[in-house]
Amino acid sequence: MNTYSKPSKPLLTLLKIGGGVVEEEVALKQLLYDFSHLKGAKVLVHGGGKSASRMARDLGIEVKMVEGRRITDAAMLEIVMMVFGGRINTQIVAVLQSMKINAIGLTGADMNLIQAHKRPVEEIDYGFVGDVDEINHQQLQQLIELGTLPVIAPLTHDGKGQMLNTNADTVASMLAQALSQHYQVRLVLCFEKAGVLLDAEDDDSVMAKLTPEVYAGYKAQGIIYAGMIPKLDNAFAAVKAGVSEVCICDRKGLISLEGEFSGTKVFRK
Amino acid sequence: MNTYSKPSKPLLTLLKIGGGVVEEEVALKQLLYDFSHLKGAKVLVHGGGKSASRMARDLGIEVKMVEGRRITDAAMLEIVMMVFGGRINTQIVAVLQSMKINAIGLTGADMNLIQAHKRPVEEIDYGFVGDVDEINHQQLQQLIELGTLPVIAPLTHDGKGQMLNTNADTVASMLAQALSQHYQVRLVLCFEKAGVLLDAEDDDSVMAKLTPEVYAGYKAQGIIYAGMIPKLDNAFAAVKAGVSEVCICDRKGLISLEGEFSGTKVFRK
Repeated sequence: MNTYSKPSKPLLTLLKIGGGVVEEEVALKQLLYDFSHLKGAKVLVHGGGKSASRMARDLGIEVKMVEGRRITDAAMLEIVMMVFGGRINTQIVAVLQSMKINAIGLTGADMNLIQAHKRPVEEIDYGFVGDVDEINHQQLQQLIELGTLPVIAPLTHDGKGQMLNTNADTVASMLAQALSQHYQVRLVLCFEKAGVLLDAEDDDSVMAKLTPEVYAGYKAQGIIYAGMIPKLDNAFAAVKAGVSEVCICDRKGLISLEGEFSGTKVFRK
Repeated sequence: MNTYSKPSKPLLTLLKIGGGVVEEEVALKQLLYDFSHLKGAKVLVHGGGKSASRMARDLGIEVKMVEGRRITDAAMLEIVMMVFGGRINTQIVAVLQSMKINAIGLTGADMNLIQAHKRPVEEIDYGFVGDVDEINHQQLQQLIELGTLPVIAPLTHDGKGQMLNTNADTVASMLAQALSQHYQVRLVLCFEKAGVLLDAEDDDSVMAKLTPEVYAGYKAQGIIYAGMIPKLDNAFAAVKAGVSEVCICDRKGLISLEGEFSGTKVFRK
């Protein structure tokens, strides 16, 4: 079933939740409950862009996006630190603790887990956006071995005292790659859609499997486009770098992980 | 010099910083630098009430105080989660990491470190304010033994998914008491004043020592009043419960800890 992982390594599921999944309280609790019941070690990475944009509007701060990517000026960095690192992260930890799961909330600065550098200004100045340099996977493994479930906000730091904003799919993919040195990692990218769709309007058109060749073809035909492209680039980067499985699905797909999986699986070849 | 601690336990300094000390970037960096150079294990607890009040005003949310204590309604709880748990905590961790100190930011929900219950409504409804029930000192000790410096926001949880706001001096005092099972704990309450003053207008009138008898006398005479009373009640509770030393001082006092201490020391008797 899986030819890339060494069977001697313990299983770890790294779940990334984003978009609407993070925003709705009842749906989020159900998802955390389902996640907490999966076998093996677990790590959670969350986004929260919609909440950050709402908070910016409430504070009268302009939300700047270029091609779907957020421009993080100093005011927006404070907001993502507060919303991702404070409210959303802490709330997820409190909910998991109420389910007797020993969650611990973290940013990339904690224990120097994710070091990054500010993206150089080329055509676009993304502001305080971090491109990841190094994952301190040994420290993360130590926390997991204490019996904790790390809950990680998509915030990184430059080692010089500056926090940075990093895309949550990228954080999840890089963490999955780094943790593959210790675990057989299953990366699950969970969002509103049932998987990668052949027809964006038809939730029943989930592609069960996706290889680089098929992906290239669908991209050329315009069947896969916009926000799915960076998501899938992160997914393929992960399987190429030794992550056992990458699964793209919605909440229902998460429950089906240990049975007949209903989402999209990404393969190295 | 100190008759209450067992010399076999390792030294731990638990520093609480609050008020203006947290708000000023340059002063905060200098203080964190000085703190990081103290001998032995270290834990930091921070406040940040002024920043939270400012954020509330920016969002058009009313700040309600009764006798110097914050009323934490649902909107204010979100703000303290964001400001204490997100912005201030994360920024302190990033600064410590830039000094090669392995800081980790935590709330009371992380690893179930501080469990509390919502304060019952009697004369005043304080809202989502938590009175501490239990400190998970074993888990905190495990983190310290991994070589980390825990940076703790004054947020607790009720174990049922509800975050709560708890006074930072109280959190520091309770943590110091619980950690006394493992360490010879020195609790340092650092604020804008050089220590407990005989004359609130005269920074040179620092009381070098304070015992319960002297404290009772000064309270009766009105020399010690207002916000100093809960601070000192927390300090005396700590020394009575086995904390080796409680020191009250400003930044200069922190540097003098390992020499001729310039602030106020609180004694059990």
